[in-house]
Amino acid sequence: MATRLPASEYERRLDLVRDRIAAADADAGVWFGATSIEYLTGFDHIQTERPVCLAVTPDQNAVAVPRLEVERVDTNPRIDAVHHYRDYPGGRPIETAAEMLAELDVEAVAADADGAPGTMGYQGPALSEFVSVTEQSWVARMRWEKSDAEIDLIRESARWANLAHRYLADDTEVGAHPVTVSQRASTDGSRAMLDALGDEYVPRTRGTGPVHAGYITGPQTRLPHGHTANRRLEAGDVLVTGASATVDGYHSELERTMFLGEPTDEQVHYFELMVAAQDVAIDALGPGVPIADVDEAVQAYAEEQGIDDLLQHHVGHNIGLDGHEPPYIDRGWGEHCEAGYTSYDAADAVMEPGTVWTIEPGLYTDEYGYRHSDTIAVTEDGIEWLTYFPRDLESNTVPVR
Amino acid sequence: MATRLPASEYERRLDLVRDRIAAADADAGVWFGATSIEYLTGFDHIQTERPVCLAVTPDQNAVAVPRLEVERVDTNPRIDAVHHYRDYPGGRPIETAAEMLAELDVEAVAADADGAPGTMGYQGPALSEFVSVTEQSWVARMRWEKSDAEIDLIRESARWANLAHRYLADDTEVGAHPVTVSQRASTDGSRAMLDALGDEYVPRTRGTGPVHAGYITGPQTRLPHGHTANRRLEAGDVLVTGASATVDGYHSELERTMFLGEPTDEQVHYFELMVAAQDVAIDALGPGVPIADVDEAVQAYAEEQGIDDLLQHHVGHNIGLDGHEPPYIDRGWGEHCEAGYTSYDAADAVMEPGTVWTIEPGLYTDEYGYRHSDTIAVTEDGIEWLTYFPRDLESNTVPVR
Repeated sequence: MATRLPASEYERRLDLVRDRIAAADADAGVWFGATSIEYLTGFDHIQTERPVCLAVTPDQNAVAVPRLEVERVDTNPRIDAVHHYRDYPGGRPIETAAEMLAELDVEAVAADADGAPGTMGYQGPALSEFVSVTEQSWVARMRWEKSDAEIDLIRESARWANLAHRYLADDTEVGAHPVTVSQRASTDGSRAMLDALGDEYVPRTRGTGPVHAGYITGPQTRLPHGHTANRRLEAGDVLVTGASATVDGYHSELERTMFLGEPTDEQVHYFELMVAAQDVAIDALGPGVPIADVDEAVQAYAEEQGIDDLLQHHVGHNIGLDGHEPPYIDRGWGEHCEAGYTSYDAADAVMEPGTVWTIEPGLYTDEYGYRHSDTIAVTEDGIEWLTYFPRDLESNTVPVR
Repeated sequence: MATRLPASEYERRLDLVRDRIAAADADAGVWFGATSIEYLTGFDHIQTERPVCLAVTPDQNAVAVPRLEVERVDTNPRIDAVHHYRDYPGGRPIETAAEMLAELDVEAVAADADGAPGTMGYQGPALSEFVSVTEQSWVARMRWEKSDAEIDLIRESARWANLAHRYLADDTEVGAHPVTVSQRASTDGSRAMLDALGDEYVPRTRGTGPVHAGYITGPQTRLPHGHTANRRLEAGDVLVTGASATVDGYHSELERTMFLGEPTDEQVHYFELMVAAQDVAIDALGPGVPIADVDEAVQAYAEEQGIDDLLQHHVGHNIGLDGHEPPYIDRGWGEHCEAGYTSYDAADAVMEPGTVWTIEPGLYTDEYGYRHSDTIAVTEDGIEWLTYFPRDLESNTVPVR
């Protein structure tokens, strides 16, 4: 049971960025993005108006943090020095980061941004007022290909998502409120995961999760980003579910189209077309495949079936530390990689082993939406399904009792 | 019972930005930020890798959206034209926005950014490749002072947060798991709100909320941003709670320090100092008060009591459409407003009527944290408490049964 990223992963990542720093002829790599800092060091924090800055030099890792993060980072074995400011804006975050860099004898940095992001209204000086800055997006790109250890965590996430999804299906009945059923399934799934993992569980949430399951129901399903309406479940409802779990920061995604009671012939028709479209996408996946081709394959199938006007979005996205991260399975991806405004090139247009994809082509009629989402890893020689809730009509039809 | 922002509010906001557009000698105002777009039009969407762009001209409001948002915005009475692209990146979001602007005969815009934000890895061309762009942060600043209608929604949020917080306190007992108690209180609070609001409820969430209550417990309380550990409640635990509810997108914040069983003398000591520090901050609040003074007042009190080393963060933040938004009650706020790198000036250093603040000075010892948070509006002639859960020791001590 994988519950925690091994320390060797962080060492490997730090080694990789040290190679890049050397190649870039910089004195240090610098990161302001919370997820990048977590990726490199395992120090996770909530990104607020208070900037956090990580500096990696050839032989040291140092951070500048607000006072309130000191105890959370102090014990991190990969952080050699912790500098702190009292709070924003009085505490001068960028000046504190600049002092840290001066202490490290750093004059030229390769940074993920020239200063901290504008989260929660943050405003502050550019880092380039203090040191020479070139911009890089190394970590954002490194995150695309997951290691076996990362995929293990996503697989573990899928396991708990599947259980919560089962609870959700079991509690689905006419007259129940979708919010209540969703929250009960999340609670029961979280309870089961916490009991099973015990001391191995890495706390990542506050007063919620680590497992979530829920759905949008009835007319809201026609909106890909629908909300949970204040309307109890009715016989004949179409449901679009979603379930995930956080395992040491990693996510999976499981979605199913379900029916409460026997679906109509029309509903069965669109359900089956949607599953077939998902099959087309999954058949197209694999190492070395141009990412855009998978979206094109679904488009071609939909055109052949005369339903391409029912597609409203691309086939899927990557998943990992963020629930929704690049690259995207979109017909324009290849061209995008070679556009002048991206940090990518032609080599980034192809699926590499270790990428983990949600495969979720949806069909949206005027009445309802139909979408399954599965989380699937591309391997050296094929693919591996990480989610496994059954996809067929019978398994996704909840009888009206 | 306030449940929905009245249409007149959006008209007032649009009128205000039209005045700014005219004064800036621009052909249109342009926004890419999801919360700004919601603030001006009531069209809310989840910000993803797919940019949304709102253009406001002297006589029209138009949006460019991904295909999957079309049905969510089509019926919005304030949007005169909806342009869409298929998806990102193949669908060319910025080019679609540029075509929309061309159709509106717009050549010079005042925009919240020169292109879409890098959410979920978005990369794209600058808007200034297509039209002349000057940057503005009008809406971010307009949001500081809330109207009576906005404060009504925050007051309604506080009401449901209070109920969920009561459920949380009632279910707190030795041996219970904090995740279970938190999620149960959230479910019950949501259930009550949804039943009471009925058709007046504006759906805003997916499979969760609209009411949340939870806590961090025991040793995690010493971290201002602690996590919910996998550890059942024990007699003698210090708890730091949090509760909120979403009412048409608006939030409140309620936090309490509680004790499970009789607190020790030391715990009572810090609890009382924390409540006194919160009183000092609240006494200092009011219209026309320099924002920094409120943080200074708490600092002076803490120094007088010899506990200033236990403060780890500033006194509080504003709250509204975001749960955590500027301005911040920080001793450096006044200086910050006049620093060259901000969009503020000296007039922004003072508390205006309509600002809504969380007041939450915290004390953090090596063992535990102590923090209440209340949501308080500054009015024309004083303040109004929006949260009202009792703050005293007795009310926040849960007997061990």
